[in-house]
Amino acid sequence: MKHNAINFKEKFTKFTDHWSPRVIAEMNDYQFKLVKVEGEFVWHDHPDTDEVFIVIEGCLNIEFRDGVVTLESGEMFVIPKGIEHKPIATSECKIMIVEPKGVVNTGDSGSELTAEDDVWV
Amino acid sequence: MKHNAINFKEKFTKFTDHWSPRVIAEMNDYQFKLVKVEGEFVWHDHPDTDEVFIVIEGCLNIEFRDGVVTLESGEMFVIPKGIEHKPIATSECKIMIVEPKGVVNTGDSGSELTAEDDVWV
Repeated sequence: MKHNAINFKEKFTKFTDHWSPRVIAEMNDYQFKLVKVEGEFVWHDHPDTDEVFIVIEGCLNIEFRDGVVTLESGEMFVIPKGIEHKPIATSECKIMIVEPKGVVNTGDSGSELTAEDDVWV
Repeated sequence: MKHNAINFKEKFTKFTDHWSPRVIAEMNDYQFKLVKVEGEFVWHDHPDTDEVFIVIEGCLNIEFRDGVVTLESGEMFVIPKGIEHKPIATSECKIMIVEPKGVVNTGDSGSELTAEDDVWV
C-alpha cells in the first residue's frame, strides 16, 4: 500500500481554472474534490444528495433562496439535498467539496460552467 | 434553514479529552467528527468502510503493518477498509475524521479507548 499524504496546497498548485473540481481522494463511493472559485456560480441544487463545502483558503458566500452563509478558511457547511444554492467568491477562494461520486457541479442546471466529472489531480 | 458556518477552531474549544470523537456535521449517512489525539492509539481496522483522516493542527503518524504515513496540517489520508492501522501523535494533534455513521473508533478491537458513538459538539 502507498503511504503518501495528500497535501491540499500542493494539489492546488497543479491547476489554475475556476469552478472545475479536481478529485484528490475517494472514500467508499464518495469523492473529495478541490476547486478554485471566483465570481458567481449558477443557481442549482442536487436533488439526491447533501454536499459539503470546506474552505481551505479565502472566503466563500453561499446564497440560498432564504439567506446566505459566509465561509472562511477552517469553516464548513452542509448543503442539504434539494436546496437551491449559488456560491459566490468576490476574490479567488480555494475549497474542498465532499459528495458522492458522479455528482455534477451544476446539478440539473446545465450551464457553460458544467465541469467534466471525475477529473483527478 | 439555519445558515451557520461550522468553525473547526471554535468547535475544538468545546472539549479537551483525547481519542473521543465529536460529531460536527452529517452529510447523507456520513459524519464529520473532530478529535484531539495524543499518544498511541490501539491497532484496529474497520472491515466495512474506508476512513478519512484530515489534520487540522499538529502532526499525526498513522502506522500500518507495512509502513507509516505522516500527516501535517492541511493533509489527508484515506485508510482503506480492512487495513489495520494505529494512529500516534507525539504531541496533541487536532484532526477531522470522515466516515459513515455508526463506526466505532476502535473498530473490532475493543479497548479502554473505545469512545461513545454519535456525540455531538
